[in-house]
Amino acid sequence: MITIVGVGAAEGYLTERAIKEIESAEVVYGSRRAIEIAKKYVKGKAVVIAKFNEEIYRKIAEEGKKRKVVVLSTGDPMVSGLGKRIEGEVEPGISSVQLALARLKIDLTEVVVIDGHARECLDEVLKAFEIGRDALILADSKFDIKKLREFANVVVLENLGYENERICENCEIKSDLAILFAKRR
Amino acid sequence: MITIVGVGAAEGYLTERAIKEIESAEVVYGSRRAIEIAKKYVKGKAVVIAKFNEEIYRKIAEEGKKRKVVVLSTGDPMVSGLGKRIEGEVEPGISSVQLALARLKIDLTEVVVIDGHARECLDEVLKAFEIGRDALILADSKFDIKKLREFANVVVLENLGYENERICENCEIKSDLAILFAKRR
Repeated sequence: MITIVGVGAAEGYLTERAIKEIESAEVVYGSRRAIEIAKKYVKGKAVVIAKFNEEIYRKIAEEGKKRKVVVLSTGDPMVSGLGKRIEGEVEPGISSVQLALARLKIDLTEVVVIDGHARECLDEVLKAFEIGRDALILADSKFDIKKLREFANVVVLENLGYENERICENCEIKSDLAILFAKRR
Repeated sequence: MITIVGVGAAEGYLTERAIKEIESAEVVYGSRRAIEIAKKYVKGKAVVIAKFNEEIYRKIAEEGKKRKVVVLSTGDPMVSGLGKRIEGEVEPGISSVQLALARLKIDLTEVVVIDGHARECLDEVLKAFEIGRDALILADSKFDIKKLREFANVVVLENLGYENERICENCEIKSDLAILFAKRR
């Protein structure tokens, strides 16, 4: 049995149900950051995954036939996470998108959430604007924020939930854990 | 001091941070359902709010000047919740939108989330379709699902996280805790 468990965007966001899943797992897979967040509840074997790829997904699928396996996903497995890549039940977690909305006091029904990790997404931002919504973009330090600023006002939110959390308007992206709020002009 | 705390869509979704906020509050406001979810962690005074309105918001604002006040919001305060209506910090929670995405194995970046509670929103669904996304609609039993089905394939998801959870395709909406997944044809 495989459960994909969202551990939240930082420490302290594990839910009661997520904790139960982690505690009862025989094997817990996750990135270094995800294992770090969940480790105090891991009672089985913890396996750090350096890079998630098809080979790992196959290995997890095989192991899931024999044991209770939990695969940790930072944030929420259904927000540009592992939920679509691995077969199994999904236990939601608090995503950085939610932390961004909380900090900015903006409702999810006012925005379109866009994956801007290692992909061109300015077209999608324009489409969001077309239908009268602002955009919330999952980004990293390689994101071309200059191009985005040509047609949108941008707030950078970084390392949300961590001690070095940073929210600023006229600044560059320094972190790979970034969310951009792009507002129509 | 006022903190608006998301208690999640049902029992078991409280985060570690949300629990700490609730435990340390002198007064906890919330709907009957929200208090029910959080009650085992309430150490201060619990106040059930029958109907949230401007008068209550003013009362909470006043009380927040003197005491540590927590206002509970079912689901996430920033998903058609109390976050925009009350001044204060927001502590996110797991929303029914996340449970819907988890059950359907659909990513948040593939949909547009729309508030369909007591308001006409079919235009917004059409706009989501226009930009190539499906729609996730927060709805209740009064929602005109027939009209929606004229141009979309609809999955009804009700009482997510509760024992009477129901997910069905060719059915009516029976609950006021409903999410509709509207897919382009």
